[in-house]
Amino acid sequence: MQPYELPLTAAADAIRARQLSPVELADSVLERIEQVEPHLQAYVTVTAEHTRRAAREAENDLAAGRHRGPLHGIPMGLKDLIDVAGAATSASSRVRADHRAQADSAVAARLSAAGAILVGKTHTHEFAYGLTTPQTSNAWDTGRVAGGSSGGSSVAVAAGTATFALGTDTGGSIRVPAALNGVVGLKPTYGLVPRHGVTSLSWSLDHVGPITRTVEDAALVLAALAGHDPRDPASLTTPAVDYRPGAGTDLTGLRVGVPRNYYFDHVDAEVEAAVRRAITRLRALGARLVEVEIPMTRYIQATQWGLMVPEATAYHESTLRTAPELYQDDVRILLEAGELMPAGDYLRAQRARTLMRQEWARMLQAVDLIVAPTVPATAVKAGQETITWADGTVEDVSDAYVRLSSPANITGVPSLSFPVGHDAAGMPIGMQLLGRPLGESALLRVGHAYEQTQPARELARAA
Amino acid sequence: MQPYELPLTAAADAIRARQLSPVELADSVLERIEQVEPHLQAYVTVTAEHTRRAAREAENDLAAGRHRGPLHGIPMGLKDLIDVAGAATSASSRVRADHRAQADSAVAARLSAAGAILVGKTHTHEFAYGLTTPQTSNAWDTGRVAGGSSGGSSVAVAAGTATFALGTDTGGSIRVPAALNGVVGLKPTYGLVPRHGVTSLSWSLDHVGPITRTVEDAALVLAALAGHDPRDPASLTTPAVDYRPGAGTDLTGLRVGVPRNYYFDHVDAEVEAAVRRAITRLRALGARLVEVEIPMTRYIQATQWGLMVPEATAYHESTLRTAPELYQDDVRILLEAGELMPAGDYLRAQRARTLMRQEWARMLQAVDLIVAPTVPATAVKAGQETITWADGTVEDVSDAYVRLSSPANITGVPSLSFPVGHDAAGMPIGMQLLGRPLGESALLRVGHAYEQTQPARELARAA
Repeated sequence: MQPYELPLTAAADAIRARQLSPVELADSVLERIEQVEPHLQAYVTVTAEHTRRAAREAENDLAAGRHRGPLHGIPMGLKDLIDVAGAATSASSRVRADHRAQADSAVAARLSAAGAILVGKTHTHEFAYGLTTPQTSNAWDTGRVAGGSSGGSSVAVAAGTATFALGTDTGGSIRVPAALNGVVGLKPTYGLVPRHGVTSLSWSLDHVGPITRTVEDAALVLAALAGHDPRDPASLTTPAVDYRPGAGTDLTGLRVGVPRNYYFDHVDAEVEAAVRRAITRLRALGARLVEVEIPMTRYIQATQWGLMVPEATAYHESTLRTAPELYQDDVRILLEAGELMPAGDYLRAQRARTLMRQEWARMLQAVDLIVAPTVPATAVKAGQETITWADGTVEDVSDAYVRLSSPANITGVPSLSFPVGHDAAGMPIGMQLLGRPLGESALLRVGHAYEQTQPARELARAA
Repeated sequence: MQPYELPLTAAADAIRARQLSPVELADSVLERIEQVEPHLQAYVTVTAEHTRRAAREAENDLAAGRHRGPLHGIPMGLKDLIDVAGAATSASSRVRADHRAQADSAVAARLSAAGAILVGKTHTHEFAYGLTTPQTSNAWDTGRVAGGSSGGSSVAVAAGTATFALGTDTGGSIRVPAALNGVVGLKPTYGLVPRHGVTSLSWSLDHVGPITRTVEDAALVLAALAGHDPRDPASLTTPAVDYRPGAGTDLTGLRVGVPRNYYFDHVDAEVEAAVRRAITRLRALGARLVEVEIPMTRYIQATQWGLMVPEATAYHESTLRTAPELYQDDVRILLEAGELMPAGDYLRAQRARTLMRQEWARMLQAVDLIVAPTVPATAVKAGQETITWADGTVEDVSDAYVRLSSPANITGVPSLSFPVGHDAAGMPIGMQLLGRPLGESALLRVGHAYEQTQPARELARAA
């Protein structure tokens, strides 16, 4: 096994035991990038020189007995919406051609302090406003979409060109590409991870979170990211928690909510079958399955769009007037649509969200978490614009991809997606666990328990 | 002195000492209503029968030794936006012709539990959406406006037809009529007094608070109103505080901010002179005067309207479609204007508010409170639509009346208005103290200290 193939936890253990040097790991990841990046295009920029230098520094630190914790010496990719001092934050957009970040974002500073090493900035659907990331190819089949908007981060983690990565998630942008590339994505509780220095798509729905190869890895990264920062007005002041899941797999007493509506409607048969198998596995571990009724489902799409569209337009207001031609057509059209939205529609969406949060809180009193498919279909072929369901209904790919993930953005509850199999074409399938606000530990425990019942996952073929 | 002339504190002391019976007090107030209400029109409905019955019950309770506290047996008026079970909440509008409230609002329930006795529901500018309350006359000159929107409550307290009253304040609607009628009005910190069961004008700016004859009285009422109620999503969970100011008038060490901009621009000379005299009085009591620069003043008006207009329209959306003719023209036009407002304008107002709150918090670190005129002019003649300032500028009366009070709504800081004199025409002048969030005690202490240096105020002539 090459060092680039190691999940974060295994790499961290090896580094701590001095069986693996950060320089070896960085070199292995950079070689892997040379090998597969031409096919994948996961990165906007690779910071090879910086990576090697930082790896040597980490090696020196470790040799001198200064171990900063599990992220020390670990190569990471950061979605190119996340500021790193001195580097461009391109947002994968021509609008940012001359950009330079003055200072680290809150999350970049925290990861840097924890010893993680930047490998490069990863591609996003332009300004995170889309679900395919057209520049980047799926790690399992380069003829298929990466998913988005954190497509580059998910593909890099899946292909071994980053040991972990960060994404952002406004309607599913961490979880959708994680699911489509067979890796783990965690959208934390709204406000748990500060967003200072991260380009906004829609501030009342935006989240930052980890993309990793295992659930345990996600817990390690979340521990470094979580915590108050007054520069993000939505940042919560909750005390630190040890997110690392224990080794046990006994889920006796756990009440797992299985949706009787919404989450299994218009879902591909192979996806549904894989998720149902995984749910059965949770029951085998001792969990009690409880049917739940998802509330207010007919408001989900209107609420997500009613919040996101005007907030996104407000963020881009001045550029949209001075240089609209710099945006890709799909994004420009969405931004221009936002200029036409009346305040009343936005207010209705805000009020619907308030009610939806209350209804979800009530639903989550009866169960400890909810299980659902992350995405109703696996990765479509690049350029495919619609999905036709078994009943003949035709759905826009983006609408389908966001449909099952956006409720967690609207309500702010945490959602953890992890792989639960592949379809007949070999494309990965993801399942999500949705928990109570600040219930990340429960999600990570259950996800980790499930993982331990499965054979270790392999990296994507990446070609 | 007739019982109706007693301020709340004096009436409460007399009741507790069994020198005054609640029945005597209620009868005196009801007689006063018969005498002056035909000229004033402060009330939508007077609940004389209920008032007398409740007064007898209070008397029985007190005779049996059951004293519920300082509000026990005190006659009050409630602005007719505030639900009282079984009564109409007319909002002074034809839209509410057939309305009946199913349950008490949070504040009505709290006052009722404290033993206060409803005398009647007082007039508001229709749905609180205006600053004159055209149905009601000023307590000092029936040819002049009452101010609004809590015009009825302010006139009733000023004229002796209620011992205290409640108002609501979205841009100044407690403080403006309180100032124009020579009484005390307190807009508490946003979220301190729950709004459940109170008709909304603009939920992110709406406040409920007391209108009284003295600052000490305001403290007594606030103590009964404050405290968490989960049915108001903005309700704060702050612990109870004893608001009652002590007897001392020594203000040594207090840093009083005197605005060098905004609050004295386009202010009537007599109003400015009275406020400056009151400020000098605070200095004589030991306060240190500190010049302060009010931040972001050119955003105040746009922010207030940008928040209020679309929220008000959202609340009235369905009636506006089915029965627009039931509204008064001025209110209908404002509501219809809200339908045309783009979401971007509302978002800009929300963002400006966030920044303004931060800037005000910074300003309020340097001083304990800020002093300013409440309203830039005294009560205008009924029907007068504009004010012409000394430099020839013409301003709409409503714009002028709301101009100095709305910053406290936008920022959510508490503001206490109390009388500091009269102009040459005999019309009252108000000064406001603006404090830190949850700094009501400091405002009440300073206002009470000022009052003790003044001769006792007389009731308005009310005819």
